[in-house]
Amino acid sequence: MRRKDWLALEEYMLGRMQDSAHDRQHVYRVLYNALEIARGEENVNMDVLLAAALLHDIGRADEKDDPKADHAVTGGDRAYETLLGMGFGEVFAAHVRQCIRTHRFRRNDPPASVEARILFDADKLDVCGVVGIARTLMYSGAHDRPIYTTDADGNIRDGAGDAEDSFFREYRFKLAGMYDRFLTRRGAELAAGRKAAAENFYNALLEEVRDDAGRGLMGQYITEE
Amino acid sequence: MRRKDWLALEEYMLGRMQDSAHDRQHVYRVLYNALEIARGEENVNMDVLLAAALLHDIGRADEKDDPKADHAVTGGDRAYETLLGMGFGEVFAAHVRQCIRTHRFRRNDPPASVEARILFDADKLDVCGVVGIARTLMYSGAHDRPIYTTDADGNIRDGAGDAEDSFFREYRFKLAGMYDRFLTRRGAELAAGRKAAAENFYNALLEEVRDDAGRGLMGQYITEE
Repeated sequence: MRRKDWLALEEYMLGRMQDSAHDRQHVYRVLYNALEIARGEENVNMDVLLAAALLHDIGRADEKDDPKADHAVTGGDRAYETLLGMGFGEVFAAHVRQCIRTHRFRRNDPPASVEARILFDADKLDVCGVVGIARTLMYSGAHDRPIYTTDADGNIRDGAGDAEDSFFREYRFKLAGMYDRFLTRRGAELAAGRKAAAENFYNALLEEVRDDAGRGLMGQYITEE
Repeated sequence: MRRKDWLALEEYMLGRMQDSAHDRQHVYRVLYNALEIARGEENVNMDVLLAAALLHDIGRADEKDDPKADHAVTGGDRAYETLLGMGFGEVFAAHVRQCIRTHRFRRNDPPASVEARILFDADKLDVCGVVGIARTLMYSGAHDRPIYTTDADGNIRDGAGDAEDSFFREYRFKLAGMYDRFLTRRGAELAAGRKAAAENFYNALLEEVRDDAGRGLMGQYITEE
């Protein structure tokens, strides 16, 4: 891709990225992940991949404005229009739109091209390991969700089978199973290398918050009369 | 403490706790930490400690409303008034107020009683280990701070010496040095037991975000013309 086109796309992206969990740093990590994963794939249209990685989350702000909006759809459409407006061809713009549209996990619309599969994996890689832990906790904080929930007796739930939102629930329902969902060889390999650090964090956190020896002492300081 | 007084204080506390990093779960962890730490100290007025631990963060909402407010001061004052209103004695209420006032780290107003030292350590313990990591990340997310900042060349800073706010900066400036600041033997011991898990997380996260092999590949896909 020509440098001036790249810089124009980058400037457009920077103008649209906001919250700290899906900020510009996430975009660059996904971009670099995508380039690394692409090395293990054949016949990759690198210009499509570069544009799709750079613009994949430009629809995030749309979800903030309208909770029913799907950032993968609105982002794909915005990328398509922007690329056409900059003079890129229709086939190119449509391919980028399709990559962005399918980067979000959905059963009925899987990534169909090699570029789409690379973007999907590059984005999922940023939910793996302790990067995924850090981003999920920041998202929890931004949306006032607790680390964990407790049962009626005050016991801390580990997230499995929980009905209420919490970081532990998000870890057990989403993050822990992410490692089996990769579509490329290199993506799966990179994810596998990050798994232990994430598991260690979850286990250490569960152990710390459940290590409440003092709780058992409460009874002796409360009197009935 | 009589159960009915405890339940009344608890109800008052629950009505005042809001954001996820300083929520009610934090209060109960600090309360249980305090009871565990108190086992290693002598001549502890347990009723003062129970009330101070339970009410130590009731001033948090004041800081939200007015950034210049100090939650340790407003929380202490609120606790004092509430305790007097419930029929507790003036000496008792003033002692609780003093514990709450000094639970926040300040050079010129250190915790002066054994109950104040226990509360200080019990609260600091919740900034240690991976609990401290999790709470700091949630706070970062709620305040739109990034995980890290980058220098002019795009290199990721590790937090040491950083001027701009980030999770890495908070870890290096605050969390990493917390372990040497404990005032009680049992508090220091509990903190030391949590140190490795926090260090492991920071090191793993720094390694993951800096492992951007794909970044070096960018150049070959960008052309000057």
